[in-house]
Amino acid sequence: MTSSFDFGPLFPAGLPAPSARWTGLAKYSFVGGNNDSEQVPLDELIEAASLALQREGRSLATYGLAHGPQGYVPLREFLVTKLKRDAGISCTVDDLMIVSGSLQALDLVNNTLLARGDTVIVEQETYQGSLDRLARLGVNAVGVPLDEHGMRMDVLAAALAELKNRGIRPKYIYTIPTVQNPTGTIMPETRRAELLRLSAEYGVPVFEDDCYSDLVWSGQRPPAIYAMSQHGGVIHIGSFSKSIAPALRVGFIVAPWDAMSRMLALKTDAGSGALEQMVLGTYCVQHFASHVPTLTKALRGKLETLMEALNEQFGTAAEFEEPKGGIFLWLKLPDQVDTLKLHKAALAAGVAINPGPEWSTNKAYAGSRLRMCFGSPSHQQIREGVAVLAEVCRKEFGVPARSANVEKRA
Amino acid sequence: MTSSFDFGPLFPAGLPAPSARWTGLAKYSFVGGNNDSEQVPLDELIEAASLALQREGRSLATYGLAHGPQGYVPLREFLVTKLKRDAGISCTVDDLMIVSGSLQALDLVNNTLLARGDTVIVEQETYQGSLDRLARLGVNAVGVPLDEHGMRMDVLAAALAELKNRGIRPKYIYTIPTVQNPTGTIMPETRRAELLRLSAEYGVPVFEDDCYSDLVWSGQRPPAIYAMSQHGGVIHIGSFSKSIAPALRVGFIVAPWDAMSRMLALKTDAGSGALEQMVLGTYCVQHFASHVPTLTKALRGKLETLMEALNEQFGTAAEFEEPKGGIFLWLKLPDQVDTLKLHKAALAAGVAINPGPEWSTNKAYAGSRLRMCFGSPSHQQIREGVAVLAEVCRKEFGVPARSANVEKRA
Repeated sequence: MTSSFDFGPLFPAGLPAPSARWTGLAKYSFVGGNNDSEQVPLDELIEAASLALQREGRSLATYGLAHGPQGYVPLREFLVTKLKRDAGISCTVDDLMIVSGSLQALDLVNNTLLARGDTVIVEQETYQGSLDRLARLGVNAVGVPLDEHGMRMDVLAAALAELKNRGIRPKYIYTIPTVQNPTGTIMPETRRAELLRLSAEYGVPVFEDDCYSDLVWSGQRPPAIYAMSQHGGVIHIGSFSKSIAPALRVGFIVAPWDAMSRMLALKTDAGSGALEQMVLGTYCVQHFASHVPTLTKALRGKLETLMEALNEQFGTAAEFEEPKGGIFLWLKLPDQVDTLKLHKAALAAGVAINPGPEWSTNKAYAGSRLRMCFGSPSHQQIREGVAVLAEVCRKEFGVPARSANVEKRA
Repeated sequence: MTSSFDFGPLFPAGLPAPSARWTGLAKYSFVGGNNDSEQVPLDELIEAASLALQREGRSLATYGLAHGPQGYVPLREFLVTKLKRDAGISCTVDDLMIVSGSLQALDLVNNTLLARGDTVIVEQETYQGSLDRLARLGVNAVGVPLDEHGMRMDVLAAALAELKNRGIRPKYIYTIPTVQNPTGTIMPETRRAELLRLSAEYGVPVFEDDCYSDLVWSGQRPPAIYAMSQHGGVIHIGSFSKSIAPALRVGFIVAPWDAMSRMLALKTDAGSGALEQMVLGTYCVQHFASHVPTLTKALRGKLETLMEALNEQFGTAAEFEEPKGGIFLWLKLPDQVDTLKLHKAALAAGVAINPGPEWSTNKAYAGSRLRMCFGSPSHQQIREGVAVLAEVCRKEFGVPARSANVEKRA
């Protein structure tokens, strides 16, 4: 078929730029929420797939396995138990909706609450996908800076007061409180309580994104903000992408029916993939609780390798706080390093990183910062990749000095 | 958690009404694209799941199995072969995108081409999900009536000319040419050629929804409009929902790169479910071609049962053309029957049907018509359900006369 037809004049205003053709992953890929392939629980997933299909595969002939638009009931039942045990959340299967990854959860929450011109509050450094979505929706994202305990409540209080003075009621406060993306912090319980107090005072719901909360080094996490809420103004989302595998597109939403019933009306996809829900529902009941510590230990080992490599290659030129869990490290390079430029130069050398400005509402603050994901590359790739990155950084910006590792060791 | 928080004031204008709580499927369910549970190829799917996971399950740790945003390559390769063989489409894996059911395809095509206030052309009787989407987007859907060969080209030509006179260039012509939903017709090749001529003349692309095209009784189908196009202004979508199982959310789009690259930019879900793609990719290569005739034969048998039951219970009060394939029958009851009312009364009696007005741009024409899906209910359920429906219809509208079956046999 010759493509003489010109679609151009038919595209509406504001359509995003066309995608470039896919050219594969970088040789040293420190981007994306990819996980450790060695930790995919393969035998157990195969067993779960066989079991689930044997038991109820015929119900695949019916949309959503006839379990309704909120998803496969046994998976929701598992989540009720898991969320109670891990996050302190008391909910029923009716409070839960299974979605196609937590990205669909973001879309459903956004489409339920946001209109062009609205304002939301986010953590100053936050998930790029959330910032991109807000920008596309024409929503103003007010960033609240973080410290080692997550979003700063003094600044949040001031921001809420200031917005109120201007007659603006933000639509939500978006937070990733448990292994914050990208900073890796965990918000302590007292601060969560303060957040809820402010949420109630200003009538602004909390949008709690807990997608990394299974990956905490200590195995201990504070109760979810959803669990602590007295007023019910919290929407909680989570995912199996980080705990099992990201290519399985299975996430979930916990929300009061008031909001849930609106999100259900917007979920017009005839259900999320049932096979993945069946397999996870079957796998998780037996294996989730023992799988997670194994995975976390492996990830922690990769973080050690990354931190060692950074210390060796960058020395004092790379500053970072050790994350409390997760799959990424947020680091600061010397001020003269523009990580947007570094990103381009590194990619040309086979190293993919996330430049800070894409993960922050404060482009200046994040200008010399970057996010490095360590879940997917092997220990050797981490060491080699960091060495290549240091070489590129030195060539482009003069740092780290060649003697960085010597300095550090001194 | 007590739910004292009021989300109400936060919802933007135009949000759809909240969903009601799920109460399960009707006892006799003649709605939804559900399939014959006996025909789910269970053993082969179990085998495919094991094989696929053993072979490449570790790649689940990477989004999209590292196959890029267009989906799992072996499934795209299968589709290249299948589309050539069955639909005459010459394409490469680069022209194909795997999506989460053809509903995501509808959304991507719509979001790439449509803005509020736009006009599109549709078949007068068409898929409710498409009409709902257009209504929600604020797009004007101009319906072109069908005859036994699908969309009428004389009316289409007149509609295009009339719109042009008014300075309106429709964004697309949406057609389900191969087993039309809900009428079950197949558009012959000559009419497809005429449709393409009009598409080129008016610069309006064709949006070809081929999701039922595997289920043709004769096993023979005309080439896809996409395959016949000389100018490239066709977007083709399809699905595995009808040929394998609807709870697997796997569909696809074939489109020129010009449009594909825009749709890719809007597909921000980090890929469709990889396990379902892997399992289908593995299953289909070996079994698809032999599975489809078996499935089609079983569906054809259910259609026979439905038509017999309708003749017995409704006699001459139920008029219909035998569909050329698929999983639904479109039928006409006497003029005094309001199928929106029948729908409610029947549901109360345990029978779910699709009232015609929800499947048509011409509410008056469709007022006494309805769609009945026969893929999912058993032969016995079909017979019993039709008997209950006739009873409800008689009670509500006085037809069919109690002696309908006698009349018919006379």
